[in-house]
Amino acid sequence: MFRFLTAGESHGPALIAVIEGIPAGLPISREAIDEQLRRRQGGYGRGGRMKIERDAAAPLSGIRHGHTLGSPITLHIENKDWANWRERMSADPVAEPSEAVTRVRPGHADLTGALKYGHSDVREVIERASSRETAARVAVGAVCRQLLAAFGVTLRSHVLAVGGVGYSPDSRPDAAHADAAFWERVEASELRCADETLTQAMIQRILEGKRDGDTRGGVFEVLALGVPIGLGSYSQWDRRLSARVAQALMSIPSAKGVEIGGGFALAALPGSAVHDVVRYDAARGWHHLTNHAGGIEGGISNGEPITATVAVKPIPTLAHPLPSADVVTGENIAATRYERSDVCVVPAAGVVGEAMLAIALADAWIEKFGGDSLAEMRRNYDGYLATLAR
Amino acid sequence: MFRFLTAGESHGPALIAVIEGIPAGLPISREAIDEQLRRRQGGYGRGGRMKIERDAAAPLSGIRHGHTLGSPITLHIENKDWANWRERMSADPVAEPSEAVTRVRPGHADLTGALKYGHSDVREVIERASSRETAARVAVGAVCRQLLAAFGVTLRSHVLAVGGVGYSPDSRPDAAHADAAFWERVEASELRCADETLTQAMIQRILEGKRDGDTRGGVFEVLALGVPIGLGSYSQWDRRLSARVAQALMSIPSAKGVEIGGGFALAALPGSAVHDVVRYDAARGWHHLTNHAGGIEGGISNGEPITATVAVKPIPTLAHPLPSADVVTGENIAATRYERSDVCVVPAAGVVGEAMLAIALADAWIEKFGGDSLAEMRRNYDGYLATLAR
Amino acid sequence: MFRFLTAGESHGPALIAVIEGIPAGLPISREAIDEQLRRRQGGYGRGGRMKIERDAAAPLSGIRHGHTLGSPITLHIENKDWANWRERMSADPVAEPSEAVTRVRPGHADLTGALKYGHSDVREVIERASSRETAARVAVGAVCRQLLAAFGVTLRSHVLAVGGVGYSPDSRPDAAHADAAFWERVEASELRCADETLTQAMIQRILEGKRDGDTRGGVFEVLALGVPIGLGSYSQWDRRLSARVAQALMSIPSAKGVEIGGGFALAALPGSAVHDVVRYDAARGWHHLTNHAGGIEGGISNGEPITATVAVKPIPTLAHPLPSADVVTGENIAATRYERSDVCVVPAAGVVGEAMLAIALADAWIEKFGGDSLAEMRRNYDGYLATLAR
Amino acid sequence: MFRFLTAGESHGPALIAVIEGIPAGLPISREAIDEQLRRRQGGYGRGGRMKIERDAAAPLSGIRHGHTLGSPITLHIENKDWANWRERMSADPVAEPSEAVTRVRPGHADLTGALKYGHSDVREVIERASSRETAARVAVGAVCRQLLAAFGVTLRSHVLAVGGVGYSPDSRPDAAHADAAFWERVEASELRCADETLTQAMIQRILEGKRDGDTRGGVFEVLALGVPIGLGSYSQWDRRLSARVAQALMSIPSAKGVEIGGGFALAALPGSAVHDVVRYDAARGWHHLTNHAGGIEGGISNGEPITATVAVKPIPTLAHPLPSADVVTGENIAATRYERSDVCVVPAAGVVGEAMLAIALADAWIEKFGGDSLAEMRRNYDGYLATLAR
Repeated sequence: MFRFLTAGESHGPALIAVIEGIPAGLPISREAIDEQLRRRQGGYGRGGRMKIERDAAAPLSGIRHGHTLGSPITLHIENKDWANWRERMSADPVAEPSEAVTRVRPGHADLTGALKYGHSDVREVIERASSRETAARVAVGAVCRQLLAAFGVTLRSHVLAVGGVGYSPDSRPDAAHADAAFWERVEASELRCADETLTQAMIQRILEGKRDGDTRGGVFEVLALGVPIGLGSYSQWDRRLSARVAQALMSIPSAKGVEIGGGFALAALPGSAVHDVVRYDAARGWHHLTNHAGGIEGGISNGEPITATVAVKPIPTLAHPLPSADVVTGENIAATRYERSDVCVVPAAGVVGEAMLAIALADAWIEKFGGDSLAEMRRNYDGYLATLAR
Repeated sequence: MFRFLTAGESHGPALIAVIEGIPAGLPISREAIDEQLRRRQGGYGRGGRMKIERDAAAPLSGIRHGHTLGSPITLHIENKDWANWRERMSADPVAEPSEAVTRVRPGHADLTGALKYGHSDVREVIERASSRETAARVAVGAVCRQLLAAFGVTLRSHVLAVGGVGYSPDSRPDAAHADAAFWERVEASELRCADETLTQAMIQRILEGKRDGDTRGGVFEVLALGVPIGLGSYSQWDRRLSARVAQALMSIPSAKGVEIGGGFALAALPGSAVHDVVRYDAARGWHHLTNHAGGIEGGISNGEPITATVAVKPIPTLAHPLPSADVVTGENIAATRYERSDVCVVPAAGVVGEAMLAIALADAWIEKFGGDSLAEMRRNYDGYLATLAR
Repeated sequence: MFRFLTAGESHGPALIAVIEGIPAGLPISREAIDEQLRRRQGGYGRGGRMKIERDAAAPLSGIRHGHTLGSPITLHIENKDWANWRERMSADPVAEPSEAVTRVRPGHADLTGALKYGHSDVREVIERASSRETAARVAVGAVCRQLLAAFGVTLRSHVLAVGGVGYSPDSRPDAAHADAAFWERVEASELRCADETLTQAMIQRILEGKRDGDTRGGVFEVLALGVPIGLGSYSQWDRRLSARVAQALMSIPSAKGVEIGGGFALAALPGSAVHDVVRYDAARGWHHLTNHAGGIEGGISNGEPITATVAVKPIPTLAHPLPSADVVTGENIAATRYERSDVCVVPAAGVVGEAMLAIALADAWIEKFGGDSLAEMRRNYDGYLATLAR
Repeated sequence: MFRFLTAGESHGPALIAVIEGIPAGLPISREAIDEQLRRRQGGYGRGGRMKIERDAAAPLSGIRHGHTLGSPITLHIENKDWANWRERMSADPVAEPSEAVTRVRPGHADLTGALKYGHSDVREVIERASSRETAARVAVGAVCRQLLAAFGVTLRSHVLAVGGVGYSPDSRPDAAHADAAFWERVEASELRCADETLTQAMIQRILEGKRDGDTRGGVFEVLALGVPIGLGSYSQWDRRLSARVAQALMSIPSAKGVEIGGGFALAALPGSAVHDVVRYDAARGWHHLTNHAGGIEGGISNGEPITATVAVKPIPTLAHPLPSADVVTGENIAATRYERSDVCVVPAAGVVGEAMLAIALADAWIEKFGGDSLAEMRRNYDGYLATLAR
């Protein structure tokens, strides 16, 4: 019965998340939540806002003396910029409303949101459609990953490419089996890429984008390590772990493609080169000799690392604006407005990807293991694992 | 309040679908449902089963005198092979159970399902994990597409590649704007590919696979034409149309990758080359000069064709079997068993993709337009469209 | 992740239920399902239909060799009367449609359904709004009670009153602690009432109703015995077991009132006379000295029997018809039509009440104990119970 | 797609509600929300807390310049008492935790919650199980009633009885047709009862309770006026409006009984005296001559006032404490602790009942009328109403 809702406008007072269904007795580190928020704010090529605010999540409910209560958890992330927007984003009516935004940016929700919801001021769309919304998801994901971490599951991401520069299929590292040093390099890289040369090349691509008033997309890989066999189900289409992971990752604002395991490359190979041979031995239990499947077979986690790749389009807000139209008058316009923005968000998107994967896994985890307290969940989990080891 | 459940084992008496929330008064053509089932059963490289049965959906509820009642619709697809499996798949206990299947096939749910559900006979997994299950989804999709068709929305799919042979990025046709002749060629092609030369080349790849006891995957494109601006929402992560479409498509049994619009290719381009410029004119209303976004911006349909690409891995059941292990004893085995199967299901997967896209769109459609009868839904829809046209 | 959908018109080919989320490995007795269907069809004062058909549920999926597979379970209950309605209820268009029903019966969905769904033939409403629909729910409930029975939970119901004749508050038996003989008398009574004198008095009330062309309602009590502490939650309004039980019971077609435990009578008493004192001893574990709460405190089961009382209005179809109106013309009419019906369905409603209570409990059970197989669920359950016993 | 979650501990920093799915463009009055919060805090016999705090809901998202945006709405209700509980309810670990509460109060979630969630400090249960949680629901209901009010639907409640003193069945007023003066008397009465003599008699009952260290329950009626024909459905058990209303009302913390319309009394009457004759005339449209059904027939609203009666048990916290047991040691104890509390909450429960009824109706409303903006919803609604009037 895991559920959550996020809320909050980009320049409103706060972002909010309410999470229902996390078991009681789970130790929660606020620092670990804020650390995820900080990771989301990092990355080369971020605009000015990341310097204005350092996000922090204040728990308003569901946590006491450092552990969960089993009641809904509320996390409150202040928008520090709110001070400058009190009038423009006031919940109460204001005497002199600010001028309406009516020129729509291509690639954003500006047009679709305004027409769907009947807004004549695009501000009323972009405040929620903004990717700032993902901070609340990262906070939810940070709770989920603390739950998963209690069972040895960890989440990782790194950037594969930016603006067409990155690993070739052949040079791509086996991140699922990388050592600690690899991940330290990822975390130390401004682009969340373990390869220093590639990092510099990607920075060049971003600098070129900045120079041209343009933006850059890219590709990241996200992984979950330590997931046991048995999450998800083939029983009904919407219980397949693959579908749930794809939904979670494609919900990231700029995501346009998702692969699980080998993804599109598998489509070109013969079956004999694709399927991962199963082995059992007393020491390692059930395992596979390869992991082209990306840890999911038949809609169920198979005990191998879950790996997914996500394509992120370049962000839609360009300093050198694209042509536009006015959503109120219908007039076609040479250039849309410029809303302050970044040049490249791929590293941050990877962190959001970790959060969304954590959310999808926690949901499937609670479904499988039940349990109203961490102790109960652990007992259930241990009992299940003992049967796998026979 | 659109919901549905499918049920049924591969060799049980029937596949079943129950659909809740379709408005009353929608004309339903049984022939149109069976036509979709027939399309799913087609394609070069299918095994023997497709010749055994010609699927047909018998409506058991929710339809009277050719139109929906507003009550749940049940579709019943008989498994003609059931006659040969009455004992082995009997719901009632049997005197002498058939021998248990214990060797697991790599790439299938055999291992994961057996361990998750505690089955010592893999038969109890593979009967539901079988892709035969998708016939029920195609039937559900066939109802959804009749709803969508009442508003001018049509679904299409065609195969881009099989076993690495197919369109190059440059030669890929603009299917969203293809003429009727193009789709006639697709429907006439054994591989659901409009290009006759490519069709033959793909057949060669399948024949090679068959010769080697191997299997073939591929890539298909699926499209929805005529979708208005406004389905889905950025308001909450799970309402984004992109996420819902990705979930629907990645739930197809062998899917390992999903792209919306330009997908992974967009990640390499600058923003200025990616975002689709918006135009308005009285004749065409709101539209875009390009459609890299694949018809979804900000999690909402933008009035352009919805286009998605899906990677399908080669099917896991090889005539030349892969190494295996015994799920009961843990013994590693040189070769798994052979369960009768196809060599390539990519064309069929495309038809399933159309069904899943129709389902995702019908869900978002009912959410937006409400309405308990087709007349009410049409009134709501027409009223909304009039506001878009201002 | 327990879900189910039912489907089927009263005179269509069949009623159908699809149930998702029942763990694998649960032994299922078809006889036990049919026994529940038989109990639903019993009771004094039933009309002719009960003699036409003896319901039986054919499993179409999810069960093999006497146990569940973990996949969706389909139950198919044939409508034996269908043979006489093939034309009138044909899914396909018919050459000469039968005359439309346009006069609405007070107390039924005739008017509301026709206006909501835009039907001009009330037949299109009453086929689904008919209480025959509850047979499918009883079948679902029969599966749920087999799951619950595996853990020692049993469901019971008996009739308290019919047409104003029945137990007084003082004479009402303590059914939660009644012996086997009591329940044998209930099952043997045509009115599902353990008191033979009251049974006869109720029959008299029904006979009077029949003589007058009128109908009779009544009150039943439904109980669940053996439920452990811990189902449901106060965490969110819709997780409260009380709310879920009330929803389940008030969904019974003629239900107009639901009480849990002492119900309305508790509202008149001082708190000191209402709340059930908690005790602990090694032999019995946690228990209460009384059970005014009806087994639910703070939205959670408290280990005592769950008891609820349901008021059933007299059925709306009278042999001596009430005044009516024509839903197409708006004309007011002296008397509505007579659709074949019963005089009193209270005993049957009690059986439906057991099914709905079983469904609500199974849902909360699966939520708390998780588990994909009966063995896993039992391990989780046993582990939890051990902690209660400390 | 209406959803909401509430969160917040009784002595934590705040109560929170996040509401998804309210259409854009709905004018929201903060005063109207706070007015509902104020009404919930009123009523004779409330304890000290109501004087400490005057609740107010601060909107943190989803509302701009006085109207909704279509994005999630967050309401934040500060707990003014939090200042005194910062240490005891700190989310962060504290150096010296306050003494654990281990004695359980009968009638509360103390025992069930502690055992379910594995808490050894009952404080961790009662903070969420507290009825203070209903303030957040009232805030959600206040938004829902503003949506409903835009279509002429209003919610009302009044107290029928306290501690056994109140209207007799014969003297009970026809609140659904009462004039404005009646409701003014209700709102002016400390017990939310229009009858001044009864009000005084109820106050006497409460004073007796207070004198005895005891508590009082009671019965209230809740109504929705102006609801059109067509909300809810018989199509599936959980779509029946009756079931949804019962679920909503029985989720009120102390509720033990719910009736719709005539409720239990209908069970004793013949059908001819129960069912409400339908009439049509051009002036009034479709209507009924009586309203025993309480505005719901066949699981669908029938255009008459929706009326329900709710039994509220006496609150469990008595100044003269009941016997208890220690949830950690299992020791049986002569008297439980006293947690500050009220003597009678029936009037407040009625206000919560209005909120829950508003929530259930808004949910069914959005399901039927769809629409992403108030303008779109109104167009859909008007179009539907025109068809009812033919």
